[in-house]
Amino acid sequence: MTRHETAAWLLAHDRYVILTHRNPDGDTIGCASALCRGLRALGKTAHILENPQFSARYGRWLDGLLCPAPGPEDTVVSVDIAAETLLPDNAAGLAGKIRLAIDHHGSNTGFAACSCVEPDLAACGELVYALLVEELGVALTPELAEAIYLAVSTDTGCFQYANTTASTLRVAASVMDAGCQAYAINKVFFGTKSISRLQLEARLTESMEVLAGGLVAICHVPLGWMAELGLTEDDLDAIASFPRNVEGVEVGVTVREQAPGRLKISLRTGEYTNASAICAHLGGGGHKAAAGATVQGEYPAVRAQLLSAMRAEGVPV
Amino acid sequence: MTRHETAAWLLAHDRYVILTHRNPDGDTIGCASALCRGLRALGKTAHILENPQFSARYGRWLDGLLCPAPGPEDTVVSVDIAAETLLPDNAAGLAGKIRLAIDHHGSNTGFAACSCVEPDLAACGELVYALLVEELGVALTPELAEAIYLAVSTDTGCFQYANTTASTLRVAASVMDAGCQAYAINKVFFGTKSISRLQLEARLTESMEVLAGGLVAICHVPLGWMAELGLTEDDLDAIASFPRNVEGVEVGVTVREQAPGRLKISLRTGEYTNASAICAHLGGGGHKAAAGATVQGEYPAVRAQLLSAMRAEGVPV
Repeated sequence: MTRHETAAWLLAHDRYVILTHRNPDGDTIGCASALCRGLRALGKTAHILENPQFSARYGRWLDGLLCPAPGPEDTVVSVDIAAETLLPDNAAGLAGKIRLAIDHHGSNTGFAACSCVEPDLAACGELVYALLVEELGVALTPELAEAIYLAVSTDTGCFQYANTTASTLRVAASVMDAGCQAYAINKVFFGTKSISRLQLEARLTESMEVLAGGLVAICHVPLGWMAELGLTEDDLDAIASFPRNVEGVEVGVTVREQAPGRLKISLRTGEYTNASAICAHLGGGGHKAAAGATVQGEYPAVRAQLLSAMRAEGVPV
Repeated sequence: MTRHETAAWLLAHDRYVILTHRNPDGDTIGCASALCRGLRALGKTAHILENPQFSARYGRWLDGLLCPAPGPEDTVVSVDIAAETLLPDNAAGLAGKIRLAIDHHGSNTGFAACSCVEPDLAACGELVYALLVEELGVALTPELAEAIYLAVSTDTGCFQYANTTASTLRVAASVMDAGCQAYAINKVFFGTKSISRLQLEARLTESMEVLAGGLVAICHVPLGWMAELGLTEDDLDAIASFPRNVEGVEVGVTVREQAPGRLKISLRTGEYTNASAICAHLGGGGHKAAAGATVQGEYPAVRAQLLSAMRAEGVPV
């Protein structure tokens, strides 16, 4: 659906329950928070479905908005979710029942009855902004402004990534005018590292595997490091970007052991390599420059699969 | 002078030589590049004075614009320079001869015959943009756009620091519309770290001194590390922010040995501490949240002076 049709659809329904994705980040949470507040401002009943993986630092975007489960009459909407396999465990039963998907992933599988998907946008938050503010005329309160800011800043790495456009920056300017305290958000999510995180980065620097004359860098994060370094989930945030950010690296890979025998592979690539195509060989997907896959197995075997997926896509490893 | 008066002044003069500051960064270089190109677009003769500290990665902002020395009839203008003590060595003889200072430092000493200083701006580049584009109607070429972007992105840490305003973001949006390839710039200056830089950060993580229950963090960078880790000046860029970015730190200090017995102290502070006031005790200055001083002596003695300057300003160390 177009933005205009989606806005009309949102006006025509009520009793909203909004879904966020597994491993929720600032884009899915910011979108859910903004959409929930925006729908309430329009006189609708709206909640966000609890997600067992919400971390404490997102509290102020979620307080007062959560519900434990949708009722049978509720209108279930997903934000920033590309596929039903990305639903959190407590929402798995809602597969097939999602009425509207608002998303910016080109790989969106079309799982919802209606979809509003704009793959050219850096953040799903830009689409939620357009729907609420531009289409539906919702006034930007500071809370709504900060929800949009959380979303757009998260998916652009605070306006640093290649997906950032002039339009992204204007959305951010607009929400700052509306009272968003951007720096307080930046400080927590981009400007601050815990000592544990710094120790993790020091270890990754020492243990990184560099291949193809420096074009490829692979970081392996064994499960045991979590306890050894006292790492929280927040400390692992955006760790997938770490190897790609080494000078000269075109393909940065992190392989994180999430549970014994379950490895989460994340790729971040430059303009010459399609991360999504590589991850498709491993049963995953995503964007061209950022994709992932979850694989069962031990690191040496998974590393071999990964290298072979890269070779299949022309990476000289 | 107001923006309007400064624009009229720029139109009324000719034969410009533009000065950048010692330890030149993206703001002073971006401003000089933009001003030089903008003045040329207005039909003026304009050059940037060579600075022995220009590093290679700024080449494309400077190529074709440099001159070795001003003639006696030339109009000397400084950009982003707060005091004549910050002139590079080859410009020291120009003290007292600067006709116009364009700057955003509240601590600007008024050294120039005329000054246009706006301390509320995050970057001097915002002022140069306003003068050239808004006041003088200069068309934004891609080169001019990238010079402005370099300036505003540098001084805001790619729009992450507290000084970033909605207006800063709109200037960035405007130059992106004009053809600035922002990501290529972000990747070099913000998104990429050399292996040497990562090794430096690993060492700083291990050696950082944490005081006052975590409110103060001090990093000492001995001269010997440069050779040991193969560090370049670019690798040291923004290293001053490193300790301040540790979770919970209000006062982050780096003490870098620039030459045997010469230490450069850099402070980055949160909202409760005035970095400029602390540095004033050490013969330096700057902004409230970012200031510095250069001190003669060995580290243990300088560290003691630093702690006493902090105590004098209420920091409980």
